[in-house]
Amino acid sequence: MTETLALAKALIARRSLTPDDAGCQEILIERLEKLGFTIERMRFGNVDNFWARRGINAPVVVFAGHTDVVPSGPVESWFSPPFEPTIRDEMLFGRGAADMKTSIAAFITAIEAFVEDHPQHDGSIALLITSDEEGVAVDGTVRVVEALQARGETLDYCIVGEPTSNKLVGDMIKNGRRGSLNGTLVVQGVQGHIAYPHLVKNPIHMVSPAIAELATTVWDEGNEYFPPTSWQISNMNGGTGATNVVPGTVDILFNFRFSTASTELELKNRVHAILDKHGVKYDLLWELSGKPYITPKGNLVEAISRAIEQSYGITPELSTSGGTSDGRFIADICAQVIEFGPLNATIHKLNECVAVADIEPLKLTYQRTLENLLCK
Amino acid sequence: MTETLALAKALIARRSLTPDDAGCQEILIERLEKLGFTIERMRFGNVDNFWARRGINAPVVVFAGHTDVVPSGPVESWFSPPFEPTIRDEMLFGRGAADMKTSIAAFITAIEAFVEDHPQHDGSIALLITSDEEGVAVDGTVRVVEALQARGETLDYCIVGEPTSNKLVGDMIKNGRRGSLNGTLVVQGVQGHIAYPHLVKNPIHMVSPAIAELATTVWDEGNEYFPPTSWQISNMNGGTGATNVVPGTVDILFNFRFSTASTELELKNRVHAILDKHGVKYDLLWELSGKPYITPKGNLVEAISRAIEQSYGITPELSTSGGTSDGRFIADICAQVIEFGPLNATIHKLNECVAVADIEPLKLTYQRTLENLLCK
Ligand SMILES: [Zn+2]
Ligand SMILES: [Zn+2]
Repeated sequence: MTETLALAKALIARRSLTPDDAGCQEILIERLEKLGFTIERMRFGNVDNFWARRGINAPVVVFAGHTDVVPSGPVESWFSPPFEPTIRDEMLFGRGAADMKTSIAAFITAIEAFVEDHPQHDGSIALLITSDEEGVAVDGTVRVVEALQARGETLDYCIVGEPTSNKLVGDMIKNGRRGSLNGTLVVQGVQGHIAYPHLVKNPIHMVSPAIAELATTVWDEGNEYFPPTSWQISNMNGGTGATNVVPGTVDILFNFRFSTASTELELKNRVHAILDKHGVKYDLLWELSGKPYITPKGNLVEAISRAIEQSYGITPELSTSGGTSDGRFIADICAQVIEFGPLNATIHKLNECVAVADIEPLKLTYQRTLENLLCK
Repeated sequence: MTETLALAKALIARRSLTPDDAGCQEILIERLEKLGFTIERMRFGNVDNFWARRGINAPVVVFAGHTDVVPSGPVESWFSPPFEPTIRDEMLFGRGAADMKTSIAAFITAIEAFVEDHPQHDGSIALLITSDEEGVAVDGTVRVVEALQARGETLDYCIVGEPTSNKLVGDMIKNGRRGSLNGTLVVQGVQGHIAYPHLVKNPIHMVSPAIAELATTVWDEGNEYFPPTSWQISNMNGGTGATNVVPGTVDILFNFRFSTASTELELKNRVHAILDKHGVKYDLLWELSGKPYITPKGNLVEAISRAIEQSYGITPELSTSGGTSDGRFIADICAQVIEFGPLNATIHKLNECVAVADIEPLKLTYQRTLENLLCK
């Protein structure tokens, strides 16, 4: 059994249901202290986080990730208990196997191997580990980044260990994420009995042409890195339940996934303009749930792409698809952030797993990325 | 105290919460038997109804109404207890005062006066009384009408005692009602994560242009008796509650209030055509909750209009507005049905009432209508 597999199993065995770290971070800290890392435990609220750094020079290469996992779902539907790491058919099963305890284990063993080969490496190596990525993500990465920012710490490169691989490990890295902008729209009409249509203003009727236009609007064409911005309604609810009453209001929740080809302000203005054009009377509350970020081709993309080619024999595609990740917070203080990790096929599902054969190449990828960035 | 007021009070004192008759009908039956009416009690399910007839010849003039009332609402919000008829400031207060125990009382005293004056009147006088108008209306008028129809009984004129007056008693009679047609529409999309818009089909987006068109369609222009047909959504619900999931379906309840200028089939076909034109994938369930009916100007309209002019000194307007009534069932076996009764301002509300001064003219109106129809 490789050291990476052994560590991944030790982490999976800890029941770290978000935001509980369940002792995972102390296992990592013990290993990092042996390598000469300076550790800063940063507990915010009930969330364990830590920042660890080896070296005082630039460039600073950061590995970022989370020790918390999502709930297992019905335990009886798992082939083996979710918090008992089990190898079967050359696969390692357990909650967190793919998202993202194996990546965390590979961070550690990659750093150990790199430091052994290059005890006097250039620059610095750091880790930013949280236990609040799968939950509300309020007292995790965002707070650590604030603390680092407050004292003027600058980061150069960051590798987030999220499971980004799609069909084959190494086939995809994320070099950015779209932004996510939520709208809570309450359309105001006038309630009344359905038999007296001249006395009512039906908010569902009034908003429908506006929705039809919003749904077919081309917000932007995307750009080199991003697909076009998309707008979707997630919830629409109006009505008293009675079949003879026209409701006074209808509630609509919508969301933008937006590229860097549009700004938050532009999108807001365009939504207001469309609603106003159709004469809709409404209240609209906005909430930015994630800014977009992008890491253009450059040192980091090149370093990790080369490392993936060496370790897995395939060339990764750059992508900005999918949901949001903590990468968006780190991008505030780090110009180059990419995400790379195992296959995402089983994450958040029953019988989450990674192939044992994919684990050692993952460690090698992270190790070679360090070499590509810190060894001239 | 007039006999009509005394009888109205006796009826209000009975707590006949729909569909409970609470003994009201036996009070009426006792009075009618004294006048020589033949009584048929028709209990269906837990609903008391009766059919009473005096005479065997045509034309048959029917008085129709209900003894049941809607719940009182919070008793402490009434100035006087809802089932204790109370006169204050020249008003008779109590649940059912306007809808429609005073009308029922006036039926009886009008018939008593008419029979006293014309013991050998032409034609026949009949009453169709139910205790299931305010509830589901399944075992009431509709069943009595079926029974009459089954034995080939034909009715010529029917006066329903619903409170049709608007601002002044006598200002409005209903000579028809619009139809009511309900649709339960389930729009089929494809559910998915909001971050992957190319994998979802948002049913709210897909149906919006169709709703916009349905909401602005001119279904007909109405006709001499009816306002234009109207279409309204009463309820629209889609979404899982989560803000990051596009729902797979959206549920819409809508209703037509339709005139005799459109048929049920035409309206259905046009809705399907609009949904299909917009490429909406859907299931749609129809339910006809009330056929429209109309009584054109003729003997009955003329007879009651003249009676109102004599009794209240004003000329009633013909109207088909408002909700449905049991008139629609009676119209199946009776060519001329009109509705006339007290002011509807307080019906189904707290402190329901009628003006004492309006009660005797109501009796006179019904009595004079009989004279106009049955005395040459
Ligand atoms: Zn994750
Ligand atoms: Zn009524």
